[in-house]
Amino acid sequence: MHKRPKIEINLDVYEKSILKGDRVMLGRAITLIESRHPAHKVLARTLMARLMPHTGHSLRIGITGVPGVGKSTFIEALGKQIVAAGHRLAVLAIDPSSSRSRGSIMGDKTRMESLSIDPRAFIRPSPAQNSLGGVARKTRETMLLCEAAGFDIIFIETVGVGQSETLVHGMVDFFLLLMLAGAGDELQGIKRGIMEMAHALVINKADGENQQAAQVARAEYESALHLFPAAPSNWSPRVKTCSALKNQGIQDVFDMFLEYEKTTKQNGFFYQNRQQQNLTWMYETIHIALEESFYQHPAVKQMLPILSEKVAKGELPPLEAAQALLEAGK
Amino acid sequence: MHKRPKIEINLDVYEKSILKGDRVMLGRAITLIESRHPAHKVLARTLMARLMPHTGHSLRIGITGVPGVGKSTFIEALGKQIVAAGHRLAVLAIDPSSSRSRGSIMGDKTRMESLSIDPRAFIRPSPAQNSLGGVARKTRETMLLCEAAGFDIIFIETVGVGQSETLVHGMVDFFLLLMLAGAGDELQGIKRGIMEMAHALVINKADGENQQAAQVARAEYESALHLFPAAPSNWSPRVKTCSALKNQGIQDVFDMFLEYEKTTKQNGFFYQNRQQQNLTWMYETIHIALEESFYQHPAVKQMLPILSEKVAKGELPPLEAAQALLEAGK
Repeated sequence: MHKRPKIEINLDVYEKSILKGDRVMLGRAITLIESRHPAHKVLARTLMARLMPHTGHSLRIGITGVPGVGKSTFIEALGKQIVAAGHRLAVLAIDPSSSRSRGSIMGDKTRMESLSIDPRAFIRPSPAQNSLGGVARKTRETMLLCEAAGFDIIFIETVGVGQSETLVHGMVDFFLLLMLAGAGDELQGIKRGIMEMAHALVINKADGENQQAAQVARAEYESALHLFPAAPSNWSPRVKTCSALKNQGIQDVFDMFLEYEKTTKQNGFFYQNRQQQNLTWMYETIHIALEESFYQHPAVKQMLPILSEKVAKGELPPLEAAQALLEAGK
Repeated sequence: MHKRPKIEINLDVYEKSILKGDRVMLGRAITLIESRHPAHKVLARTLMARLMPHTGHSLRIGITGVPGVGKSTFIEALGKQIVAAGHRLAVLAIDPSSSRSRGSIMGDKTRMESLSIDPRAFIRPSPAQNSLGGVARKTRETMLLCEAAGFDIIFIETVGVGQSETLVHGMVDFFLLLMLAGAGDELQGIKRGIMEMAHALVINKADGENQQAAQVARAEYESALHLFPAAPSNWSPRVKTCSALKNQGIQDVFDMFLEYEKTTKQNGFFYQNRQQQNLTWMYETIHIALEESFYQHPAVKQMLPILSEKVAKGELPPLEAAQALLEAGK
């Protein structure tokens, strides 16, 4: 038996408050969505269903880059221009480390100091979930809640060190890779394939002594990107330099987002991409649910660590291990 | 009720004949593995389990490239040198088009004319399966059967136009991208990200008037690859030119395979990669089985086309569609 939730949850109140843009209730709804309590899950699903008709009207932007690239400063500088231009901005995060512990760097609220106290902006750290897939799913739902609450620009940031970029890329309209011009291995730490997903590479910290190196790197990346085939969006990836610290080149980045939106809405790619993402989301939800219920089966839980160790050591053929687990999970 | 298989299948005979290198029985075993007959599936599983201890002793090479790049000629030229050097070579294919019909280009036995009649080589077209995942799984099992039959070099070829390269990359030790030097868009048709998975880019048709363009392209790719970070294998991707037609540069390619094997066996990456692939294979088998059984559920079969159309049109939220299908498939 699960305990009855202590606080009575009135979905009507949630729905109305969120649609009015109430940030406190928005925060509570996100907490509800992140909850693992079975009763909360049902409520969260119902709330999502009610709010879905009010979602989809934002420009969704993914921002990735390795630690040290200046992501927080960049987002703060960009975010301040965006809200100054009359938009409402939500900044969400997908942080792979948060799937293991609550001690996520993204949870550090003191970064983005001035943006985090701006009423036109809403900053939410990465949800703590058991798996990266879980993190992604909760982030996607959080994005929709923010849209229902009237936020018309959404940033989803992630650290460019793992699989999370692919997940972010699959839920946004525009994907930006933030980089540094360094000596030699500029791409160090950036996983293969990320560069190819990006709609723009932005080289940050292009100021002072670094300015020339940034221009050289920009030319190099432009020539490297030139080798890649055209994307279905008909958008050629841009390479830009900026200094978030000195607030240089930031307006340019925002203009580029709007240009991308305009171009791809005109040629229809924007909508096709959203539809494709919706279908993918449906299938992903199904597959995650199937796997969750399988791996929660007590017999599977017990056998899995033993069998996978045997497979890794070469003592048990993978097919036999799979078969044994499937039998156990029936 | 399923019909009893017409031919009595004696697994002892299969096992012994395959271990002796009998090509006819190897072919029959592959057919057994490809069969969708439930009784055959059980037999195939048992046969695989018996033969597994005799697998793993080959060098597994993936070869991809867009149509027109000269893949068949390349494989024939390379294959002839490999068997002449005393190896036994199996050439398998993963062809996405074969998942829809038997009319696969890979089934064209008349290509690779001299290799296909060589007793030291074994050429098998892509299996016809319902899904690319199914094709991949059958190809992996075929690879293992070939290893049990004593083939010590395995080629898995695929056309570089879709997701099949990722699947091939996940089951081989070495991944080769065959290319052409063209005017301007050399990478046309090659999906983003493939270049980054490759252990080697080989520019074919580097002969006659094409020779200089091939050298220029080679230099360009070398400089582009230089921008990518080092792989965990510590192997820097090579860029080579060759002419399969004139049999130039082919020995070089084979030597490179052996160098890769030696290097990565010495630093241990070869074995780590295999273990990782085995674990992935176990999980993939489980997930495919879970999805297969879900999508075969009559209620799911009936609802899926209707609901996915609604999702694609934006009439139904993906989460709700997923939930409805999950309920139906219980």
